[in-house]
Amino acid sequence: MADVTTLEQHRCFDGVQGFYEHASSEIGLPMRFGVYLPPQAQQGPCPVLLCLAGLTCNEQTFAIKAGAQQHAAKHGLVLVTPDTSPRGTGAPDADADWDFGHGAGFYLDATREPYARHFRMESWLMQELPQVLQEHFPVQMDRAGVLGHSMGGHGALTLALRHPGRFRSVSAFAPICAPTEVPWGQKAFGGYLEGDPSTWAAHDAVKLLGRGARVPALLVDQGLEDQFLATQLRPERLEQACAAAGQPLTLRRHAGYDHGYFFIQSFIAEHVAHHAKALAG
Amino acid sequence: MADVTTLEQHRCFDGVQGFYEHASSEIGLPMRFGVYLPPQAQQGPCPVLLCLAGLTCNEQTFAIKAGAQQHAAKHGLVLVTPDTSPRGTGAPDADADWDFGHGAGFYLDATREPYARHFRMESWLMQELPQVLQEHFPVQMDRAGVLGHSMGGHGALTLALRHPGRFRSVSAFAPICAPTEVPWGQKAFGGYLEGDPSTWAAHDAVKLLGRGARVPALLVDQGLEDQFLATQLRPERLEQACAAAGQPLTLRRHAGYDHGYFFIQSFIAEHVAHHAKALAG
Repeated sequence: MADVTTLEQHRCFDGVQGFYEHASSEIGLPMRFGVYLPPQAQQGPCPVLLCLAGLTCNEQTFAIKAGAQQHAAKHGLVLVTPDTSPRGTGAPDADADWDFGHGAGFYLDATREPYARHFRMESWLMQELPQVLQEHFPVQMDRAGVLGHSMGGHGALTLALRHPGRFRSVSAFAPICAPTEVPWGQKAFGGYLEGDPSTWAAHDAVKLLGRGARVPALLVDQGLEDQFLATQLRPERLEQACAAAGQPLTLRRHAGYDHGYFFIQSFIAEHVAHHAKALAG
Repeated sequence: MADVTTLEQHRCFDGVQGFYEHASSEIGLPMRFGVYLPPQAQQGPCPVLLCLAGLTCNEQTFAIKAGAQQHAAKHGLVLVTPDTSPRGTGAPDADADWDFGHGAGFYLDATREPYARHFRMESWLMQELPQVLQEHFPVQMDRAGVLGHSMGGHGALTLALRHPGRFRSVSAFAPICAPTEVPWGQKAFGGYLEGDPSTWAAHDAVKLLGRGARVPALLVDQGLEDQFLATQLRPERLEQACAAAGQPLTLRRHAGYDHGYFFIQSFIAEHVAHHAKALAG
């Protein structure tokens, strides 16, 4: 059984918000993640909501700023908040930019050197971390949903599209919908992935929908004062792709709201309820 | 009319969470504060809840971590979150410790040099800031409550006790109840206040209660796994002083909870409701 080190634990809404570290074999370095156990977890395993954060965030950001625990406690969901990249990889330039490298793993397995060894976020999240969670926490890994914000919204969409059946529910706040078409995604995919840009489509939600991939009913919230709306996020591309594919999508546009956690906390109750409904029973 | 500079504004629960700065004449330096305007403020002035944070915090901490906006939006309260001290005073040693100087103003007017010029938090909060708020925001300053955490709990208690009639409601999370009896308070009062320790009693909630000061019905929450409970906080001293004084107090002790914002967010709904009830009508 793989060791997990407890870094912090805090009682919260009669549950426990903890932060943990384990030696990841996929990543080849220690990786950190948060787990919120609702009070229901004292009676037995609970469904899991994987919460993927955005650029510059770490395993604490969503846990501190989103205000999700009160709703997880109400519905009996475990919240899992992984770090957004490997840390301390020693890769040149991994600390140079806020939108690439450390804090910007883009939820994929890199194939280009010098990133290929450590930047294996997809394998960590889809293979290794679920086993670690199953071994150490009262979780029902066969009842899992995924939620993400911005880069994490891209992660939620693409991981769900690439791994059919693994998530029963999917939602996103201000996701990067078409990464191959925008600067953040082009920089990340060009840096992390070998080969020509045609290979990037395997990590682009819009492209994956076009290729026939599907996810369970999808909830997306987007603020209309989001400073990245037109340049990086492009929800209309997701809307078009879902319409063309017959993929159910609820896309809600909110006047006045921006890209940050004051937006997320305003609508997090409905996201947690969306997942709880799909994960129940 | 004094100028106020808008630093940030974010839509949040159909209201606006802003952060602002003004040139404080009391402090002699720029001072920052947060204001959350609930949706009801679009129709007219609303009651105010002054939220005082603890050591090391600034004007953003409570606004980001406490999860209070959703409840302020429900009840129609304005949340005001001031910084916890002057910044950039140039006072020697003001940055040396986390429990004294910058980030640790203790909500009093210093009388000892070199702190007396700038560390005038009580005058800023009780005289200057209310005028600034009245001029620039839709607030009913005659309907105000005060809430605080840790050092800010000391601030909430002592400002309310020292200024009868200014606050219609008072509450605290894990307050420093008897600062003259504990290391944090002794260090702060010894550093900020001239004269012998007998003068410190004027800023000690327990001592003020003993001298006949009273506040409206008081709500205090305290976690029993708080790492500072016995050494710095001493809620039993507040309990004794209130009992001796006939001061109404609801002191709730919570098994398992610690000193941080995961504790605060777990009970913030009840605090905001406590204030809303007193500030209504």
